[in-house]
Amino acid sequence: MQGFELDGRLARDSDLLIKLGLTQLRLQDDRRWPWLVLVPQRNGLSEIFDLTPLDQALLTFETNLVATALKKVTGATKINIGALGNIVRQLHVHVVARSEGDANWPGPVWGHGTAEAYDPQEKQIFIRRILEAL
Amino acid sequence: MQGFELDGRLARDSDLLIKLGLTQLRLQDDRRWPWLVLVPQRNGLSEIFDLTPLDQALLTFETNLVATALKKVTGATKINIGALGNIVRQLHVHVVARSEGDANWPGPVWGHGTAEAYDPQEKQIFIRRILEAL
Repeated sequence: MQGFELDGRLARDSDLLIKLGLTQLRLQDDRRWPWLVLVPQRNGLSEIFDLTPLDQALLTFETNLVATALKKVTGATKINIGALGNIVRQLHVHVVARSEGDANWPGPVWGHGTAEAYDPQEKQIFIRRILEAL
Repeated sequence: MQGFELDGRLARDSDLLIKLGLTQLRLQDDRRWPWLVLVPQRNGLSEIFDLTPLDQALLTFETNLVATALKKVTGATKINIGALGNIVRQLHVHVVARSEGDANWPGPVWGHGTAEAYDPQEKQIFIRRILEAL
């Protein structure tokens, strides 16, 4: 993975939890929703179909691993998975825990309002719970 | 795939184009964006991680096949892929062609405004182009 360059906005808006086989698993710093982001450590790609077939399979595996852990930790009503990239073009996949009555429910999280940063201790507790559930 | 029951809202809002190995490929009847929907022909599932590993791999393959065709036909700036399901719980994956300046760009398509139905002839032309590109 040497030489992988993370997009500046992804770096600023999220914290690294762990590097999986293909992706960096990151926590979006927005306490309105439990929100993880997977970033394949490949430069210059913006679409999932730009990945090799093997990397596509890895991304599927890692996305489902993370989605399962997030569901387990949060008990969310529904996991939302999305690869949009209209603003940040570096390929990344959102995995977000949604529950009835949360901000903008049942609408999407993207583009809604303004991020609310975690309290540092609250963030560390959530990160530990995710890592334990993986 | 005998006995597969399609959700009523998916049936009403979209047209069947073709059945792939795992999924039904459908066109969302909303001319604001070129918008396809893949529905795995499995009953009672709402999350991607509810699929068997083999079905997960098939869904990845079929999603990327369809996304590649949609990109080719539309020349879109960005393909948006999403599995939300906050309203319709039956597992389905959106594949949407986005271009700068389209409705709600660069925000998401979900929950934005009201669908605009295709003119029947326009719809058939678009369907034919997608099927040819698969």
